[in-house]
This record gives sequence, C-alpha cells and structure tokens, in this order.
Amino acid sequence: MKINGVPYRSVWLNEKDGWSVHIFDQTRLPFSLDILTLTTPDEVAQAICTMQVRGAPLIGAVAAYGLALALRQDASDTSLENQATMLAATRPTAINLRWAIDRMLTCLRPLTPEQRVAKAYAEAEAICDEDAAQNEAIGRHGLQIIRDIAKTRPAGAQINILTHCNAGWIATVDWGTALAPIYMAHDEGLNVHVWVDETRPRNQGAALTAWELGSHGVPHTVIADNAGGHLMQHGKVDMVIVGTDRVTRNGDVANKIGTYLKALAAQDNAIPFWVALPSTTIDWTVADGVQEIPIEERAASEITHVAGRDPQGTQTTVQITPDGSTAANPAFDVTPARLVTGLVTERGCCPATAEGLRTLFPESSPSA
Amino acid sequence: MKINGVPYRSVWLNEKDGWSVHIFDQTRLPFSLDILTLTTPDEVAQAICTMQVRGAPLIGAVAAYGLALALRQDASDTSLENQATMLAATRPTAINLRWAIDRMLTCLRPLTPEQRVAKAYAEAEAICDEDAAQNEAIGRHGLQIIRDIAKTRPAGAQINILTHCNAGWIATVDWGTALAPIYMAHDEGLNVHVWVDETRPRNQGAALTAWELGSHGVPHTVIADNAGGHLMQHGKVDMVIVGTDRVTRNGDVANKIGTYLKALAAQDNAIPFWVALPSTTIDWTVADGVQEIPIEERAASEITHVAGRDPQGTQTTVQITPDGSTAANPAFDVTPARLVTGLVTERGCCPATAEGLRTLFPESSPSA
Repeated sequence: MKINGVPYRSVWLNEKDGWSVHIFDQTRLPFSLDILTLTTPDEVAQAICTMQVRGAPLIGAVAAYGLALALRQDASDTSLENQATMLAATRPTAINLRWAIDRMLTCLRPLTPEQRVAKAYAEAEAICDEDAAQNEAIGRHGLQIIRDIAKTRPAGAQINILTHCNAGWIATVDWGTALAPIYMAHDEGLNVHVWVDETRPRNQGAALTAWELGSHGVPHTVIADNAGGHLMQHGKVDMVIVGTDRVTRNGDVANKIGTYLKALAAQDNAIPFWVALPSTTIDWTVADGVQEIPIEERAASEITHVAGRDPQGTQTTVQITPDGSTAANPAFDVTPARLVTGLVTERGCCPATAEGLRTLFPESSPSA
Repeated sequence: MKINGVPYRSVWLNEKDGWSVHIFDQTRLPFSLDILTLTTPDEVAQAICTMQVRGAPLIGAVAAYGLALALRQDASDTSLENQATMLAATRPTAINLRWAIDRMLTCLRPLTPEQRVAKAYAEAEAICDEDAAQNEAIGRHGLQIIRDIAKTRPAGAQINILTHCNAGWIATVDWGTALAPIYMAHDEGLNVHVWVDETRPRNQGAALTAWELGSHGVPHTVIADNAGGHLMQHGKVDMVIVGTDRVTRNGDVANKIGTYLKALAAQDNAIPFWVALPSTTIDWTVADGVQEIPIEERAASEITHVAGRDPQGTQTTVQITPDGSTAANPAFDVTPARLVTGLVTERGCCPATAEGLRTLFPESSPSA
C-alpha cells in the first residue's frame, strides 16, 4: 500500500546490500516513520519481542528472513534448528510464526549448508509474495460482503465497519487481512467509514490502524475499546471485521484481547462479525480455542503506562496507575466460533465451523 | 474512608470560614492529593464539567453546595432558578444531579431570600449525610452477596470481583456504592481481590479505584478494559459489581461506557453481575434505558490523549492517535436489565425488574 503516494511493503530486502532486512519500527508510529535494518537473527527476535514488527502474518514473514540471516552466520544443522527454535519462541500465540518457521525448516533441512542461504532468502521472499497475494484474495472476497451490505442501504449511505487492533497492511506483508476489503471498498467508491477501537494496552488501533487508514484516505473515527457495544445498540455499526492470530479447526478465533467482547456485542445486536485470515492462520491441531490456545501474558508495564507524544513533541510514556498497584496483561482472547458470522479466507468465505473449513481446505483438514 | 489513616469524606465544608466547600481534585489523582476550595456556583460547575469531582452521587452533593454558594451571592427567586438550571446542566446522564437540585429547589422555593442560605447549607449537609448512610447500607447488603459466594468456596479461597470505572468512596460522599461491599468484606477478613478495569478514556479505574483500594489495603490488579471477558472465560472472576449513573424503572442501567460489554461477558460465562446504587439513582420516569437515557458525548481529546505522569514526574498528557484522525467519545452506555443479576440498594437487593424495584420502593414506583 502507499504512504504519501509511495508504495511500500512492511518488510523488504535492503537493495543496497542484498541481504539485510528492512522493516518499519511500528513502536514509533504514528508519529515517526522510522525504517530499521535487521542484520542478525537476534535483532529479528528483538524486533518481534518488542513489537517493532507485529501482526501475525508479518511476524511469520520477518521470522523467515531471520532464519536466512542466521544461516548467513552459520548454515549448519545445529544452527538451523537452534535459531528456528529461538525465533519460534518469540511470540506464543500467533500460529503463522510457527507455520513460517516449519516451512523454512522443511525446505532447508534436506539441503547442504552451502545451499541453504540462497534457498532461505528465496523461500522467505516466496512467503512474502504469497502473503501479499493471499491478502489481496481475502480483500476481494471480503469486498463482496461490503457490497452486499451496500445493496441493502440507500445509494451512497455510509457503511460503518468496526475493527479491533490492527489487521491492516502493516500487520501483513501487504494489503492486510481485515482491512483489505475496506481498502478495496473505499477504492471502488463505496462510502465506508471505520470505527477504530484504540485497542489497549498497546493502542494498535489508535496508532496503526488510524494511521494506515488516514494515509490511504479512508474515513475513520477512533473510539475507546469500551464504546463499540453502545454504538452497536444504536445502529451505528453495520459489520465488524477483525484479523486473527490463530483459528482452530472448529472455527474458534484467537485475536487481540477484547475481540471476544465485541463479538458478544455484535451477536446481541444481530450485527455480522467476520474474521479475515490467510489459511496459514488455521491451527488444524487444535479444536477448542478457549481451552487449548496458549495466551501470551505480556508485561504489566503495558497496562500501567501508555505510550504517546507529549506536548513538547517527544515520544514518551506516562504512568496511569498509582505506584504500588499491580497489573495483569493477557494479550489475546478467544472468540468462540458460535459468535463468528464467518471466516474470510484467500479461497473465499465460510462458516466458522469444522465443516466450513473442511469444505474450503479439504487437503488440510483432519478427517471428521 | 481513610487516607493514610486519616478519615475523609469526598466533599466537606471549610472549617475555617464555615461556608466554602472542599473537594479533592480527582483529575490529579493518583499522583497528587490536591484539596480544592470552591467559593462560587461557577467554580462548582467548572469542577463538575472538568471532572475534578465526578461520580453520580458525589456530583449531586457538590451541586447542592453549589446552590448554597449561589444563594450567598444572590438569594432571589430568579437567582435560585437560574443557578439551579445552570448546575443541573453540567452533566446530562447522572440522575442524582437532577434529584439533588430538585430536592434543594423544593425546600428552598417556599422560603424568603433571607431564610434560604442557612437552609441551603443544612439541606446540602443532609444530602451528604444521607448519601453516606445509604452507601453504608448498600455495603451491608452487598457484603451478604460476597459472604454467600465465600460459603461456596474452600475456606480462605480468593474471591475475585471485577469492577468497572470508579464507584468507590470518592465517587460518593463516603463508602462508595459498588466498592462499599468490597471494603466491608475486606475489613471482616474475607479474601477479596479486585480486577480493576482501567476504564478508558479517563481511566477512573486505573487512577481512582486502584488508588482507593490501595489506600485501604485491598488487593487488586489493574487490567485493560479488553481483558475482562478473557478472565471470565477462564474462571478468574466470581462476580462483577458496578455503580450506575441512572437506573430506569424497569432496571436498565446507565453506567460508564463499556459496562454493557462486561455484562454481556458475565452472562455468557454465568457470572453474577450486580449493580449497586442509592435509590436516588432510579429514574422512575424512564422505562427503556437504551432508547430514552441521554448519553453524554465528551471531548474527542479524551480519546486522542491520555493523562498520566511522565518519566520526569510531571503530570501531563500524551497524544496516542495520528494527527488528523478524529475520535468519538460517548461517555456512558446502557446495560439492559436482562443482563443484570440484581440491584443492591440501601433497602436491600432486588431483581433488575419493574416488579423488583416496586417491591423495594413502593412509595416511588409508578403504578403498574
């Protein structure tokens, strides 16, 4: 997608040296567009852990490049396995990360150390290209949902879409998942307006989704995470669409903490609740999301402090809790499939059920 | 309640001059305990509008003193009516404010201007004393609910109570509404632990509830507003209790934005969801809360900026949204009565229904 008219991806190879990896420092957005250069697997792991790169699909792609960087240093079997394990451990909830590492290992293990570096870069690039293509397909399928809503409204009436966290192009390699249909709807002239949940504690909605949408010219309004239910009660939300970090084979959806609350409100107000994902997000080994998906507990400081720009223009944090009060910070929750209207994948839309997923992905789904 | 062992109310007459009114500047908490002196009705209105005083019961009490201050300046009929209208308009959602002003008018209108000042102070003091007594009664009734939960648990097991916003002693004259039962349970040795929703956008939970509970020694953990549903899914919440700004005669509950989402999650996980209120919070003229209660829309800057203490120790705000992104800020939502386990009032507990309220308050309830 474009920033000030210039097309970018959210991860790309440094053209000058042909091997180091560029990302945006997403902890500096929306106030500063800083491009980082990653040169070692440790730097990649650090960028993932500190959420300089975040978003389930993007993490997988950047970790793949991290393995390529590791092999430049040491392409032995031991190095390959150890660095893969290290990178896979950076975030526990996102399944794409494990998927990307597994794909890299499957393709690199049979090779000699001498063959591995070039192949690792090629495979990481393929992962990136496929992610962008998948998200474009998700966008096309999701666009049809928005078009269908538009048909039920007076011509030109605003279509209000609520989203939580950031599942936009900077959470992926390009296009985004939940935001891809919105970009396409906006680009073809549909009157879409996005309610952007700020998404505490890290405010990915306020900082990243609002920035992305604003950069592309999509009308949007930032709201507190608390506000969505009220807006739904009053007819101000036509659909909800979010991304996901992991979908179980039965259609349960792990996503940023708070997603479950919006799904409950959508159901209570008969508003469609869609989840957009590349099929790499599906964990076919897991059935019950609430019981089985590990939920990352992040630092209490993300709750006790809020990052932003102070009146002097400096990016800083402010403490919002009393000295001595503790905080808990589960980073994700699981929305049971029963609350999900449907899944938007690169192969089309399906119900959030084992049967729905099996129909779209017969080659992956375990037999019933 | 006590701060560092010293008992306070949240509004009190200045002992030195006998007429000006002291409050805590709640916008400075939890980092600074600043006592303000209000000397004119305009200062009172300003303190309410800027939320230096907030909390439905406390606003009513402070506004009553505001009318006394007004009459010191001009005790004529015109002044009485104009200042009452001005003070009642400071916050549109809290019904106690209107109730307190109406009570003052009813008692002051028949008097001569010469009689009004002394009576206004006496009536404001009576409102304060009655509020404290009502909240103590609410605490006793709510305590029984916590005791009943404790009986179903192993001896000494932690009882986890989730609350939203601040319905503690600094939201009232003393004791609080939702927090009164918790203080009493803690004081009698029950092992209560409170999940404190931070309550964006103004973070009354993170700043005020955490400060209150910490000052009194009650174990608590601050969480993002997004986290409650996840905690409930995993058995980590035994009950929810919140305050309210207005309850309809059918039991619908207006409270801080986001309350509705927690009520949905409580219902989905079969967790009791209680609302604590003095009967002055009941609006017998309103039946359907979602359709009829006016919801205050506050400044967008409360969404785009977060107040706190910077690393240098200065209280400031940081911007969290991109320049150019707009924000919406509905301050309250309405939880339909069907999601409320029951109401805890000064006369006892009742179902959140017209019949339940009629049984407890037969003299106030309109005939069926």
